[in-house]
Amino acid sequence: MAVATQSLEELCINSIRFLAVDAIEKSKSGHPGLPMGAAPMAFVLWDKFMRFNPKNPQWFNRDRFVLSAGHGCMLQYALLYLTGYDSVTIDDIKQFRQWGSKTPGHPENFETPGVEVTTGPLGQGIANAVGLAIAEAHLAAKFNKPDAKLVDHYTYVIVGDGCNMEGVSGEAASFAGHLGLGKLIALYDDNHISIDGSTDVAFTEDVSKRFEAYGWHVLHVEDGNTDLAAIEKAIAAAKAVTDKPTLIKVTTTIGYGSPNKQNTAGIHGAALGPDETALTRQNLGWQHGPFEVPQDALNHTRKAVERGAGYESDWNKTFADYKAKYPQEAAEFERLLSSKLPDGWDKVLPTYTAEDKALPTRKHSETCLNKLAQVLPELIGGSADLTHSNLTEIKGFGDFQKGQYQNRNIHFGVREHGMGAICNGIALHNSGLIPYGATFLIFTDYMRAAIRLAALSQAGSIWVMTHDSIGQGEDGPTHQPIETLASLRAIPDLTVIRPADGTETSGAYKVAIEKASQNASTLLAFSRQNVPNLTGTSIEGVTKGGYILVDSQGTPDIILIGTGSELSLAVTAAEKLTAEGKKVRVVSLPSTTLFDKQDAAYRESVLPKAVTKRLSVEAASSYGWHKYVGTEGDTVSIDTFGASAPGGTCLEKFGFTVENVLAKAKALLG
Amino acid sequence: MAVATQSLEELCINSIRFLAVDAIEKSKSGHPGLPMGAAPMAFVLWDKFMRFNPKNPQWFNRDRFVLSAGHGCMLQYALLYLTGYDSVTIDDIKQFRQWGSKTPGHPENFETPGVEVTTGPLGQGIANAVGLAIAEAHLAAKFNKPDAKLVDHYTYVIVGDGCNMEGVSGEAASFAGHLGLGKLIALYDDNHISIDGSTDVAFTEDVSKRFEAYGWHVLHVEDGNTDLAAIEKAIAAAKAVTDKPTLIKVTTTIGYGSPNKQNTAGIHGAALGPDETALTRQNLGWQHGPFEVPQDALNHTRKAVERGAGYESDWNKTFADYKAKYPQEAAEFERLLSSKLPDGWDKVLPTYTAEDKALPTRKHSETCLNKLAQVLPELIGGSADLTHSNLTEIKGFGDFQKGQYQNRNIHFGVREHGMGAICNGIALHNSGLIPYGATFLIFTDYMRAAIRLAALSQAGSIWVMTHDSIGQGEDGPTHQPIETLASLRAIPDLTVIRPADGTETSGAYKVAIEKASQNASTLLAFSRQNVPNLTGTSIEGVTKGGYILVDSQGTPDIILIGTGSELSLAVTAAEKLTAEGKKVRVVSLPSTTLFDKQDAAYRESVLPKAVTKRLSVEAASSYGWHKYVGTEGDTVSIDTFGASAPGGTCLEKFGFTVENVLAKAKALLG
Repeated sequence: MAVATQSLEELCINSIRFLAVDAIEKSKSGHPGLPMGAAPMAFVLWDKFMRFNPKNPQWFNRDRFVLSAGHGCMLQYALLYLTGYDSVTIDDIKQFRQWGSKTPGHPENFETPGVEVTTGPLGQGIANAVGLAIAEAHLAAKFNKPDAKLVDHYTYVIVGDGCNMEGVSGEAASFAGHLGLGKLIALYDDNHISIDGSTDVAFTEDVSKRFEAYGWHVLHVEDGNTDLAAIEKAIAAAKAVTDKPTLIKVTTTIGYGSPNKQNTAGIHGAALGPDETALTRQNLGWQHGPFEVPQDALNHTRKAVERGAGYESDWNKTFADYKAKYPQEAAEFERLLSSKLPDGWDKVLPTYTAEDKALPTRKHSETCLNKLAQVLPELIGGSADLTHSNLTEIKGFGDFQKGQYQNRNIHFGVREHGMGAICNGIALHNSGLIPYGATFLIFTDYMRAAIRLAALSQAGSIWVMTHDSIGQGEDGPTHQPIETLASLRAIPDLTVIRPADGTETSGAYKVAIEKASQNASTLLAFSRQNVPNLTGTSIEGVTKGGYILVDSQGTPDIILIGTGSELSLAVTAAEKLTAEGKKVRVVSLPSTTLFDKQDAAYRESVLPKAVTKRLSVEAASSYGWHKYVGTEGDTVSIDTFGASAPGGTCLEKFGFTVENVLAKAKALLG
Repeated sequence: MAVATQSLEELCINSIRFLAVDAIEKSKSGHPGLPMGAAPMAFVLWDKFMRFNPKNPQWFNRDRFVLSAGHGCMLQYALLYLTGYDSVTIDDIKQFRQWGSKTPGHPENFETPGVEVTTGPLGQGIANAVGLAIAEAHLAAKFNKPDAKLVDHYTYVIVGDGCNMEGVSGEAASFAGHLGLGKLIALYDDNHISIDGSTDVAFTEDVSKRFEAYGWHVLHVEDGNTDLAAIEKAIAAAKAVTDKPTLIKVTTTIGYGSPNKQNTAGIHGAALGPDETALTRQNLGWQHGPFEVPQDALNHTRKAVERGAGYESDWNKTFADYKAKYPQEAAEFERLLSSKLPDGWDKVLPTYTAEDKALPTRKHSETCLNKLAQVLPELIGGSADLTHSNLTEIKGFGDFQKGQYQNRNIHFGVREHGMGAICNGIALHNSGLIPYGATFLIFTDYMRAAIRLAALSQAGSIWVMTHDSIGQGEDGPTHQPIETLASLRAIPDLTVIRPADGTETSGAYKVAIEKASQNASTLLAFSRQNVPNLTGTSIEGVTKGGYILVDSQGTPDIILIGTGSELSLAVTAAEKLTAEGKKVRVVSLPSTTLFDKQDAAYRESVLPKAVTKRLSVEAASSYGWHKYVGTEGDTVSIDTFGASAPGGTCLEKFGFTVENVLAKAKALLG
């Protein structure tokens, strides 16, 4: 493999390889195998095809690049550095995986401009890429005119064997094939090695055939190590097929160039060590020191800066023309890109009085979604095959299907995890779209990794979760959430809201939409069953997470804290206790997340320390409630699995009755 | 479709259909579509192929049947009733989906003998079936002799479109193909309808081709409604292929027989209503009243009782012969089936003193697993492609691979969710095998549905989770659990243990193995980084969940509560506080699950109410800790996402230092 003189392309590719090798060597931590093997495909892609502007990573019409095999992030950092992004300097690369660096251990969009989505948990990236491609297709269908292509970019993703083993990638790929997302192009780094060794130990399926079965256009580059022309030809062929996504299987050697470690699991996730690093330099004829990039290579790769300026400037002209011809659409486009919600959007959210009909909060959710859809064209989403249970259809806006990309109802299929990651991709397209994904609350378990990544990566996804307790009823314990709310409330930066009635549902959507426009994620939990509209509930109260719904004169003897469908039990119990001469406060606590963020004075005003007799009422686990009910308090809760029976029976049998609330309250009052 | 006279087979098939229709009509809840469409394939399978003994549902060598499309459970209840199981009487069927019935809304193995695994959450069942087939293959390879086939059964599974959309089914199917599990036969109820309507809205891939890509043998029955001969021929052909699992795509009409609702989503998940029920009776020529099964049909289906007795009696002879020839193996086989652990098995678990070398608890876990593997041949499992990070290889026991089914190290590939459901299937084979599955703690998010189902369905799976905090280090926030422990501790009936050192790791395994043998599931959380061995830790202490590690004379001024890798911080801080004259107790709380189950007196003895100054120390979310630290206590915890940096740096920056523990303790002491 040793070469006396290297072509310019080889210089560039080896620059990527050695930036990875040297950074990982310095930090003694990281994954050199992928960057070394995938450098050729990445170089060809970024050099010959990708349209981006390093000096404006947020330029709207850029091609999106996702490294789904996120552990290979040094590949991406090397590319960002070489092509002239300001976000990754050579010093940043020297700080790989160190505290506070721009080059963390996996690509993080919130740390490093130029990184589109946060990857690392395998399979998420390709599913995010499907979301990015959906966003592009939707905006193109919505804004493009016969004489003005305002929205026109590709989404490229590099996936590894690990990604392809994960179910979430299969779900998303199947859906992408169904949708015929022609501008989605995946390069599969087929290196036959995963952490446990050869993929022969666990993964011997025919991946290409599987993607063909999904309806993808599939190509194969047999020598992804050196045949740059074949890579280029394949990407060009992929672009030429416009009605199907393309998978290019690129067969490579992991750790290419390392004489003793290439093609072994040993180079997947560990530094080469000084000896092997030296041997690799020798083997690849690399005469440059650590972190040294030959000027010729840098001169070449940095041409991306000028190219990028040109792309953006051309597009700016396109946009100027567009604006002149289509001022209204252009204004809407600009509004979307600014993530500015239209003035007065929240005026459509209804409020209710106690005289209004009892309905399930999922029904109120349907009303909110439909009203919001009218004033927020950015709202796009759907359910994982539970549309008419989740009640998430936005009527009049059509189904998002192949050739119908202007529509806004997405049928995700029974693919909760894929749905989650796809929504995150739509959100992280950063074009103002607000995606929502729906299923039964219990099935957040299927998509939890995506829910967490939404919170972590600042994706403004909204999760619409219905059937939020044992009130779910007959489907039984497999479908009844118990610990689910607790498990979600514990996720940092995720706002969980469980509204009690129609007005609180409006409050929940007010928060969720505002958060989404600020790149934060919200999970909404709605009841299957009817709940009465309560006097005193308010949108403003929901925004604070918790508030006094019913109060007593003077210091209360007891505080009843309710959420969601059980708040009315607390209210009724309070009425009875009051009639018996007790001083009772009822606190509605739809969101512990939001309540915890209020200042201490507000929290004290709602839950004064002096009142230690506190009883929470929620048809869910007691886990986490002790923070609010305190050492002296109690909970009306369920810490076992549920049961199959009509919802009302379940609630009654498990103690979610006024009688039981009263009994527990009286026990506290002594 | 109306027929004046029906063949015996039609009578039986329509009996299944109308038991489903009538039960769902009575309960006004359920899913008639699948039972009506899949009745022919189910009848042929149960009538012509399945070997089982209705009077002994636990007969070891029975064929296993899994209804992965669990919402169609009335199909299974009808089969159990018709074939003479005592578990489902006609009265039970009349109680479908009612409180306390044997016929809950989805099949639950812990409620209804004859149901092998708990399904409903889609895709789980087929993955469980892969586990059942693995168990069979393993036991066959282990016990069968050239002259005695002790273990020899098939695993049949009915999957629907929903199952096939779920990623978990893809993961498990890919793995089954890799393993060449020839005795796994899946019947795919290809009815083109899911809840949102035609599968055309979301699911247009070529499923058969995908399974071929996985390495399955794939067949197609074009008319699954009436062509019973074709179904029979396909199942026979499936059995004839012994080196690959088989998928039989059986094209059916959902809700077959309902003139107005068949082939629509309207019949998927709702009762037909009285009018359509009457029309369906008319259409199918069914002249029997609700819950009425024609005697001819019952006489025929109940022949299963005699057949079953014969199967078991034949097998009992086989076993008697085997026992005579191979007494030692037979004794071991009987021990396994009884779930009795070998005497003294736990003696191999090591204990340590403070002089022993500091090691990561994952390393202690490796030691325990390897020692246990020697004395517990039932221990079988592996990692989702992190074998050498999770340290889960049991050395000397080979890799479980195609043709090497006697081995015990399973390489699950990067398929966490599939791994979880497969482990549950192995456990629910109910043959004494104790499966374990491993990954990084954070990736429990990928397999959470399976972890929950293990707890719910009383599957004795052990989850070995390493890299259990921000001490994970450089991989960064995508790989660092924060809320993960809380989210798992909240799951009912799951025991979570986070041991602090070598001795506590032994305690954790003692609990996990005992629980597994009693059909309960345990999750173990281990550190990536070194931890010292502490004086006073004990196996017995772990079994109680929490215990006093260091105590003061008299009532403590403060209690420091530590878990896992942070317990040593509490110990060191306590030493310093004691040196300053404070009375300090240190409590090790490796398992809140186990601690909560101790009696009140014990809990009070460890955490006396009188001591309100309490500080927990755990490198994880504070969520859930207020139950133990109380209103006056505090936590050393992390409620934000982590960061990419060396593990020690992360721990330090986020406050997991003796200094910070001291500072917080002193703040409490005032």
